[in-house]
Amino acid sequence: MQDKKINSRPVFFVSNSTGITVETLGRSLLYQFSSIQFESHSLRFVDTAEKAEKAVTIINKLANERGIRPIILSTLVKPELRAILATAEGVYLDIFDMFIAPIEKEIGCKASLGLGRVHGIGDDEYYSERIDAVNYSLKTDDGIGAGEYAQADVILAGASRTGKTPTSLYLAMHYGLKTANYPIVDEELESPLLPASLKSHKEKVFGLLVTPERLQSIRTKRRPDSQYSSLPQCQYEIRQTEALFQEENVPYFDVSSMSIEEISSNIINMLNISSRTFLP
Amino acid sequence: MQDKKINSRPVFFVSNSTGITVETLGRSLLYQFSSIQFESHSLRFVDTAEKAEKAVTIINKLANERGIRPIILSTLVKPELRAILATAEGVYLDIFDMFIAPIEKEIGCKASLGLGRVHGIGDDEYYSERIDAVNYSLKTDDGIGAGEYAQADVILAGASRTGKTPTSLYLAMHYGLKTANYPIVDEELESPLLPASLKSHKEKVFGLLVTPERLQSIRTKRRPDSQYSSLPQCQYEIRQTEALFQEENVPYFDVSSMSIEEISSNIINMLNISSRTFLP
Repeated sequence: MQDKKINSRPVFFVSNSTGITVETLGRSLLYQFSSIQFESHSLRFVDTAEKAEKAVTIINKLANERGIRPIILSTLVKPELRAILATAEGVYLDIFDMFIAPIEKEIGCKASLGLGRVHGIGDDEYYSERIDAVNYSLKTDDGIGAGEYAQADVILAGASRTGKTPTSLYLAMHYGLKTANYPIVDEELESPLLPASLKSHKEKVFGLLVTPERLQSIRTKRRPDSQYSSLPQCQYEIRQTEALFQEENVPYFDVSSMSIEEISSNIINMLNISSRTFLP
Repeated sequence: MQDKKINSRPVFFVSNSTGITVETLGRSLLYQFSSIQFESHSLRFVDTAEKAEKAVTIINKLANERGIRPIILSTLVKPELRAILATAEGVYLDIFDMFIAPIEKEIGCKASLGLGRVHGIGDDEYYSERIDAVNYSLKTDDGIGAGEYAQADVILAGASRTGKTPTSLYLAMHYGLKTANYPIVDEELESPLLPASLKSHKEKVFGLLVTPERLQSIRTKRRPDSQYSSLPQCQYEIRQTEALFQEENVPYFDVSSMSIEEISSNIINMLNISSRTFLP
């Protein structure tokens, strides 16, 4: 453990706000250096000269202790804070520095460089929509609230434990989509037809599948040695739900190796949402 | 509406995967040009030469129709796909192009440039933790499941409608923190002491406050003209919960103008989470 720390390269994510942008970008970049061990540190809400100087002190202290130059990625809107951070020991890359100039040149207009609250409430109406969507998804989780499907943007269907609940919440929270979810269980599995409550909202239904082996593994964690988590039961449920999706022409896909982010992006891609174009 | 579209600058976010990184970064950058009207288009899962060529066709078609050069931001891992996209009409900025070279130079090691699944399941154990945390937060939403507080990482407390539920889900989904939430209501408001179920887990409790006016506005949408949404009731509840947080030394803050991302970042900042450093 100690050796690992000594050999790892420190990375500092410095932001004047939540750090969401710089941490998201940083994760994508570092992922491309799979042979290197990184150790990440987040310095958030660095929005005054004093805090920027404190950040430099923290970075230099670690650099000196380890004898290795840290990588410093930042999203600092104010040039005077960037100037302070640039004095830290390490390779310093500010995201605004790199992108703002070429965009300014293209559009012939200077960036306002106002202190960013990109992840703030911002457009209050859109923010309220997201919160309303989260509340809607909670009210219609796990097959409850079917009387409210007229308001749904998306209804996820599938066997129990195929990732419907977290995906519903993600679609609601990040894309403001009212997303219900409906587990197909018991006698509904016997017929290759959509349950009545879904039938009249068929155009909003998306099916999620996983492999029977994946389902068994997920269910075993929850209820080991049960009928529910047995391989034959998982095989039966997946076979029946897939037959149903095919019979009813419900779009569906295998999410066995997908994260909730990936399942959500796939659904967004299948929808035709205003002012966005998608590749088929 | 039509005029607005004609004058707006098209922006394409092109990604070989979910688009989360490029859209997050793009939002931060465009936010800095508040006087410009942008129109964003997302082209996700562009992972073959054929799809990259299709993306170029889509971009050029819009550029020609509008007679304006689009801004093209991309996260394409494969250099051959970037080469195709670079032929599109517009200003082309690839995130990997701009950052990978300086990082390679610093660490003396070439990027692997494997097709990124940064937002994939990745580290399966961490992914399971996030899903478990979401399930935990659902089980302990709105004061239920207090018997499970021993497992909590964070317990949010506050008056009804102060943003506890969506923040709990965000902390669970994005940071893998088991986050319960507890509404302080009815007779619990009368005493400036933590309810018994919170008392024994006091070190995990964070208080959320909003201004009485903000609370009234939120509650009015839910139950207009009720005692629940009246200003005196909102004033009373905020005064009492604040007195309680002070009396019990529970850390708390005003979230009236904060998004769930900002509330969550603030809480993360107050916690001391492994391998991350924070500014005080």
